[in-house]
Amino acid sequence: MPHTTAFARNQWYVAAHAHEVGRELLGRTVLGEPLVLYRTEEDGTAVALHDRCVHRRYPLSEAPTRLDGDRIVCGYHGFTYDTTGTCVYVPGQKRVPRTARVASYPVAERDSLVWVWIGDPALADPDAVPRARHLDSPGWVTVRGMEPIDCDYGLLVDNLLDLSHETYLHGGYIGTPEVAETPITTEVDEDAGIVRVGRHMADAECPPFYARSTGLAGRISRRQDIEYHAPCLYLLHSRIAPAGADGDDSRAFRTEITYAITPSADGRVYDFWAVSRDWATDDAEVTEFLRANNHTVVMQDVDALNLLQRSLGAERAGYQELSINIDTGGLAARRILARLAEEGDKPVEPVS
Amino acid sequence: MPHTTAFARNQWYVAAHAHEVGRELLGRTVLGEPLVLYRTEEDGTAVALHDRCVHRRYPLSEAPTRLDGDRIVCGYHGFTYDTTGTCVYVPGQKRVPRTARVASYPVAERDSLVWVWIGDPALADPDAVPRARHLDSPGWVTVRGMEPIDCDYGLLVDNLLDLSHETYLHGGYIGTPEVAETPITTEVDEDAGIVRVGRHMADAECPPFYARSTGLAGRISRRQDIEYHAPCLYLLHSRIAPAGADGDDSRAFRTEITYAITPSADGRVYDFWAVSRDWATDDAEVTEFLRANNHTVVMQDVDALNLLQRSLGAERAGYQELSINIDTGGLAARRILARLAEEGDKPVEPVS
Amino acid sequence: MPHTTAFARNQWYVAAHAHEVGRELLGRTVLGEPLVLYRTEEDGTAVALHDRCVHRRYPLSEAPTRLDGDRIVCGYHGFTYDTTGTCVYVPGQKRVPRTARVASYPVAERDSLVWVWIGDPALADPDAVPRARHLDSPGWVTVRGMEPIDCDYGLLVDNLLDLSHETYLHGGYIGTPEVAETPITTEVDEDAGIVRVGRHMADAECPPFYARSTGLAGRISRRQDIEYHAPCLYLLHSRIAPAGADGDDSRAFRTEITYAITPSADGRVYDFWAVSRDWATDDAEVTEFLRANNHTVVMQDVDALNLLQRSLGAERAGYQELSINIDTGGLAARRILARLAEEGDKPVEPVS
Repeated sequence: MPHTTAFARNQWYVAAHAHEVGRELLGRTVLGEPLVLYRTEEDGTAVALHDRCVHRRYPLSEAPTRLDGDRIVCGYHGFTYDTTGTCVYVPGQKRVPRTARVASYPVAERDSLVWVWIGDPALADPDAVPRARHLDSPGWVTVRGMEPIDCDYGLLVDNLLDLSHETYLHGGYIGTPEVAETPITTEVDEDAGIVRVGRHMADAECPPFYARSTGLAGRISRRQDIEYHAPCLYLLHSRIAPAGADGDDSRAFRTEITYAITPSADGRVYDFWAVSRDWATDDAEVTEFLRANNHTVVMQDVDALNLLQRSLGAERAGYQELSINIDTGGLAARRILARLAEEGDKPVEPVS
Repeated sequence: MPHTTAFARNQWYVAAHAHEVGRELLGRTVLGEPLVLYRTEEDGTAVALHDRCVHRRYPLSEAPTRLDGDRIVCGYHGFTYDTTGTCVYVPGQKRVPRTARVASYPVAERDSLVWVWIGDPALADPDAVPRARHLDSPGWVTVRGMEPIDCDYGLLVDNLLDLSHETYLHGGYIGTPEVAETPITTEVDEDAGIVRVGRHMADAECPPFYARSTGLAGRISRRQDIEYHAPCLYLLHSRIAPAGADGDDSRAFRTEITYAITPSADGRVYDFWAVSRDWATDDAEVTEFLRANNHTVVMQDVDALNLLQRSLGAERAGYQELSINIDTGGLAARRILARLAEEGDKPVEPVS
Repeated sequence: MPHTTAFARNQWYVAAHAHEVGRELLGRTVLGEPLVLYRTEEDGTAVALHDRCVHRRYPLSEAPTRLDGDRIVCGYHGFTYDTTGTCVYVPGQKRVPRTARVASYPVAERDSLVWVWIGDPALADPDAVPRARHLDSPGWVTVRGMEPIDCDYGLLVDNLLDLSHETYLHGGYIGTPEVAETPITTEVDEDAGIVRVGRHMADAECPPFYARSTGLAGRISRRQDIEYHAPCLYLLHSRIAPAGADGDDSRAFRTEITYAITPSADGRVYDFWAVSRDWATDDAEVTEFLRANNHTVVMQDVDALNLLQRSLGAERAGYQELSINIDTGGLAARRILARLAEEGDKPVEPVS
């Protein structure tokens, strides 16, 4: 009885950090659809095609498949596709069958993220991509990574919407007693599909993640303002300042923590993460510290969620959860995800 | 079509050797129920709780879950439980929901074994725990271990009830030609759920296991008297003496070989083993030899049973077995296990 | 939705190269039937028995099972079988049950291949074994090997019937651009179950496999004549000569490439391979080069087919293929295999 959250198909999802897509073929699976991604030689546009050759279904992202200019040459029998997915060469004959074509997916590159649309292409509106401008803005420095997790994507949504786990799972890194102790405020915009969870700690211990990077030595005021744009984009607006100086912008440190939660397949999710700051931007040591420290934190989540998925998968029958106040945001997120999944399954009305 | 023997729920099962349970959280699965075991700081009592937090079902036996005094603090969000399984703390709010509680299982510690009861707690009678007093008696020295096996627990019962396999699987360790050649006697006490299998070899080769530990050089008289208390406790009363001196207690060596057969989950079993002796009790070399030699013997069983389970699992359809005289005890054990499993499934009549 | 091609039961299949069968017990699975193979001490005849003891189904091919003369002694409880599969000894009693017998399979050893018949033994005609005489003829030298692949055997049939993949998957070894470019001719003998695919390249690059072994430096004439005897035997008659000298036998090099395609179980196949030549037969360096080079080529297929099977297995629903001219032979092979499988499932009419 594994835990599975339905997929919302008609939505934008992050398939890759921009720097991951280049002239090497990159295989990713989004909502169960295998994709091959690359950039054109001509103008660097990101391309996302279905990752299976039409002939005998060899994965186009796997060697010896290769790029020939902007065309993909299948590594099994040489079927060759252009950037639209149209087959332009087959072995042993001149005529290419008219139906020889792999699906091409809408792509929108924004804020150093490569978003793809798996559902009905007619509904793909690039202006609907939720933004995370700090990832690619002057004056901001970002560290980032991606970890695949063998768990239902709903477990990662649960994890990120309820930061009380920082105190326990990430103690000694980003958690302190105050995170678990402080009650949250939750706002839900059902129509926009946005969940906001806030936690304001007036007088808190400074966790090593911030103490070592900012140099703040004593107690701090700490704010965590989550803004989750279901299904994929999670923004954590973090602000710390010396305790009592919360109102003084000149003594505060703003950090933007970004996650993109991309369902890969049933029981698999991509955990894209980034930490952006507009302070100490020239300090390479701080940059490396934040990268390494957040990677450690992400791996703590990865280990816990892999374990949790295995545990839930071993349940012999249905199981119950017990939800409390801290789960308000996570439960709202589940409701919104269920609605988006249901809407994505409805037949789309023709434009008249 | 894997081999699966039904579980008898209303029975005592060994969850651990006593020394395995301490102030580190120990995870074990018995009859498919995940358990976390530990000892209290206060008086060293062994505690067995359900190994899943009520909140989001994180395993309580897994780091960073930890003990705080005699309470377990979940490593994910800090839900905290006392020794009865009652939740006494949750994050972010003062009120602990009344239903926040994990199951607590009856525990009986006897003879250096920690027994648990998974079925109806009202039926758990500690006096019904079958005894193996030699494991923890003055004048006896015991070596022991535990190996998990990826097989149906019925295969381990089969294995232990039919010792003719010693000649083939454990040749050069505990098997000699006479074990397979000598006919057995079998007694079954259906009501008590006890199977006795005896094999008395008047003039037999001395296997290395005994030759090296006792110093007996020539032919021996050898008795193997099995006493299987279904479902979990298996006692092998072993006695060897120089051939012809069987009646002379002063020249005989008694060894008690104990197995506890605990079904962990479908296709998984814990093989607890112990070898106890009341001779050469001060000889550390003999102790280490018996430990290492019996561990090797157990691992021969482990390898054979893992293999057998995989083979049976790969059968395309039903399969047949062919049973002969040596299987009389094993077949009786299967009948008793089937009856105990069936009884355990019946609704329990209320005490009037 | 894994790819599975039905098994044709009443057919001969290669279970082993002759040199693989000896006095060590060899386990192989053919059409889902586990077999144990060995040679008799008496006259070296190859024996194939069902690989499960009748008693508790221990695999007879696994240690500590062993040969005692020409009898197999089960490593678990010592049940002993003669070359016909008849049980001749059981432990603990004198009488051997009449029904104690494991199946024995017809074996035909031809051309250094050990063929077995899994279907109705009454239909097993050794004269129907398709021949590959070059494997064991004076004047020919052969290198060979076997690789198990975790894929449907139909994928290996597809692979071998369409050599256009040499250009892409085996470029730098046996593939050159001309293989993919040159149209094929296909002949199908539906009744005999033989598919012939020919490709004649008048003026082609010489691939490293032949350039280094023959010493031919320039352009070549190259012929590939496939002769597939469904379901198991695949012969590739290869002939190269300097370009323009195709008609001159004295300047041509004939190489016989043999594959035996033996379905092991659903999603598993044995890929037996051999390369035979009647030129440079005394040159050990050429022998070793051809062995190593063809092994590399086989491993390229193994990797691709393992990958392909995993990809097809991950498909959420049915999938389509697109076939073109080069697939004519492979599609004919699929038709023949489907017919042979269907015929093998029909009840056999009694001989009247």
